[in-house]
Amino acid sequence: MEGQTIITTHDIDELFISTVVRLIQRRAFLNLRNIIAKTHSADIARWFPRLRTEAKRSLFQILVEEKRMGEVLRELNSADIGEFVEGTEPPVVAGILHTMPADDVTRILSDLPVEKKAELLNLIEGATSADVERLLEYEEKTAGAIMTPNFFALSEKTTAAEATECIRELADIEMVFYVYVVDEENKLKGVLSLRQLVATKPDTPLKDLMTSHLYTVHTDMPQEAVARAVARYNLLAIPVINSIGQLVGIVTIDDVVDVIREENTEDMLKMAGTGAVDITSHAIFRNTRARLPWLLASFAGGLLAVYVIGIFETQLQAIAALAAFIPIIMGMGGNIGTQSSTIIVRGIAIGEVSLKDTWKVLWREFSTGALLGTAYGLLLGGFASIFPQFRVHAWKLPLVVALTIWVNMMIAATVGTIIPMFFKRIRVDPAIATGPFVTTAIDVFGILAYFLVATLLLF
Amino acid sequence: MEGQTIITTHDIDELFISTVVRLIQRRAFLNLRNIIAKTHSADIARWFPRLRTEAKRSLFQILVEEKRMGEVLRELNSADIGEFVEGTEPPVVAGILHTMPADDVTRILSDLPVEKKAELLNLIEGATSADVERLLEYEEKTAGAIMTPNFFALSEKTTAAEATECIRELADIEMVFYVYVVDEENKLKGVLSLRQLVATKPDTPLKDLMTSHLYTVHTDMPQEAVARAVARYNLLAIPVINSIGQLVGIVTIDDVVDVIREENTEDMLKMAGTGAVDITSHAIFRNTRARLPWLLASFAGGLLAVYVIGIFETQLQAIAALAAFIPIIMGMGGNIGTQSSTIIVRGIAIGEVSLKDTWKVLWREFSTGALLGTAYGLLLGGFASIFPQFRVHAWKLPLVVALTIWVNMMIAATVGTIIPMFFKRIRVDPAIATGPFVTTAIDVFGILAYFLVATLLLF
Repeated sequence: MEGQTIITTHDIDELFISTVVRLIQRRAFLNLRNIIAKTHSADIARWFPRLRTEAKRSLFQILVEEKRMGEVLRELNSADIGEFVEGTEPPVVAGILHTMPADDVTRILSDLPVEKKAELLNLIEGATSADVERLLEYEEKTAGAIMTPNFFALSEKTTAAEATECIRELADIEMVFYVYVVDEENKLKGVLSLRQLVATKPDTPLKDLMTSHLYTVHTDMPQEAVARAVARYNLLAIPVINSIGQLVGIVTIDDVVDVIREENTEDMLKMAGTGAVDITSHAIFRNTRARLPWLLASFAGGLLAVYVIGIFETQLQAIAALAAFIPIIMGMGGNIGTQSSTIIVRGIAIGEVSLKDTWKVLWREFSTGALLGTAYGLLLGGFASIFPQFRVHAWKLPLVVALTIWVNMMIAATVGTIIPMFFKRIRVDPAIATGPFVTTAIDVFGILAYFLVATLLLF
Repeated sequence: MEGQTIITTHDIDELFISTVVRLIQRRAFLNLRNIIAKTHSADIARWFPRLRTEAKRSLFQILVEEKRMGEVLRELNSADIGEFVEGTEPPVVAGILHTMPADDVTRILSDLPVEKKAELLNLIEGATSADVERLLEYEEKTAGAIMTPNFFALSEKTTAAEATECIRELADIEMVFYVYVVDEENKLKGVLSLRQLVATKPDTPLKDLMTSHLYTVHTDMPQEAVARAVARYNLLAIPVINSIGQLVGIVTIDDVVDVIREENTEDMLKMAGTGAVDITSHAIFRNTRARLPWLLASFAGGLLAVYVIGIFETQLQAIAALAAFIPIIMGMGGNIGTQSSTIIVRGIAIGEVSLKDTWKVLWREFSTGALLGTAYGLLLGGFASIFPQFRVHAWKLPLVVALTIWVNMMIAATVGTIIPMFFKRIRVDPAIATGPFVTTAIDVFGILAYFLVATLLLF
């Protein structure tokens, strides 16, 4: 690379992407090749969501020819990966996968249909294939599935000078952060940083340099727990050990960053009750199918509300004004319930709330609900008593709505706390339970409370 | 450290924390000191949310005596930091801050009241104080505010051997990932990795080793953009330059991980309409105050609904069964609207959706809404026509609710898309607009649509 290219990330903006999209659509492939040569693979990957199928195919072909497809492939979303694999000769795909790190290959293969996966695995040669096959055996989203088997480990007796020599000869270990020290049985004994290695006398054995106080994770640990550990202890990589203490891989911080972003997206979508929607995809039918079942909770709750209100039809017929307050009672309950459940779900996700805190957070949310309910109950009661049409029964209707708002907000905050804590308890992801379930439960309860209070005081 | 302590992160569990809490409450300080000596500061920080004020104070004191308070302080939440600063002699606090990296000190000070900040800044000595004062001048949550000014930069003419010698002598540069190369005016010229340095001939000048193709950020770039850049290009640190191209600091990946987690938490809380709630705090009044105003949107929308339903009181009096379907119409609209707005807000946050995509996502969400509305409209219409009490007007009431659900879900998905895109356009954080605003707008619209359709077809 000649000359200087200090790139401030501001430069990679909207305008640049649009230019590229135009070049591809105009089939100005010579210009395009020049741009590709100067562009980071992660930025090339960002062009794809903007392209039509036809343009995508052209770009795939150019990237293969320019030997950039491997780097770009690991940055694509699964729909685009699928399209590439579908539209390309299997031996070509296998050749590209062969140049990639085993953990990236594993991630790509595990999203493909079973037969395609088997076909490609057969075509990939040598060590990579064996590594990938081993990684594929770990359960998805565990340390074993996301780790890279290419780490740098040496025996305890190696000297600093020998270790430095090894690094010098090292061909293709992605990023060396730490030097792991193992015994003859490949059991992890300690770790030292590259900097420690540089900063010492050449003939010191690693045994005397390493620290044996280090954090590890087991192959079966869920990826979000791995990410939390790496983040908490400010590590650049964490070693993964199997059940007998052998070092089998490492999870590096760049993968951890991806895990954190992915887990957060998943949590948000679950909380919104959208299921496994692919937010980068524009496929309408697939989107619809993913979201359809999640609305069922809300639908069932709605039917229950139809039934509940049906019970109180006589009362409604007598005082039609009662119906006017149904939306505000639902709205206030739903909103405070969402506040509480979001605080709890997020607290659990970042490790700030645990089951031990149940009573403490329950009390906090209940009290908060009671206070907010008092405030908004007084407000709504005051508002209702201003208008003559709500005073048909003197002060009674304003009192009914004020009381209902108070009770409902208190209960809604409590329910919004209990449901995610309960799901955490029975080891279901709290995020999944939070969206439609909490609001639906609260809606039905609110309406029931409203008509009960009304029947008691007005009839 | 003697003997071997391979710690799998599973071991640092609930039980361990409870044991510690008990030790503190029983004032078994000797045992406690032993445990502290063996525990990572990040884990010690996690004890605090479980402790009462009294116990916290004891623990603070022990940590100060054991010279661990600095490491622990940077891991605490702002409420606990405030409590420590409040309850400790300023010279002691200043002494502790003096031992910490400038970026951590800056973060801690910027959360304190103005006078306290000034007092401590005066007490901190020498270079740290100057660094911190400079960092405090950058706007909060920008690259300048979160960067560390302690990076490792050398002149172009330095040789690999000289550079290695420098690293060996280096006392306290937190983590060395990259060696930055600058000219006489401190302008950034290139970068090389520690590994490149180790793997080369000793007399090579850095100029020949470095790559001059590198990513940088400006001091005023928002922290979430910095985090996105580091994540996208799989960097361990990104150099921060000022307006004339001088290297003034670096943002390291461990800080980026914290930024990503913090930004995600903020987004989720904004989407739930909770305002700046501190999820680690148990202060009920502060919590209530933070959440109170966010419920106003929902309250105002509720009052509007009272008014709308009031207009149609005659119709309600004639057919009380109409009221029974208010909750399901609100619920289905609210839920699909939340789905759409969450998908859009998250897409914007991770850089997958931009304003250029407006028509594309609008069309996708509108179509999805139309399809889902058709499905649930048919379901609800079918359900309503089964029961005799809803057939008072033959097929008319079932038709009304089916039509309303269809229209409402179509519009709700569209509104859930437009509002965050509009906020992005006018440079307001889309997350803030999404929760209460979207659902309230949709609720009021849904009720209006329902009674209009009902009046048209039934009366």
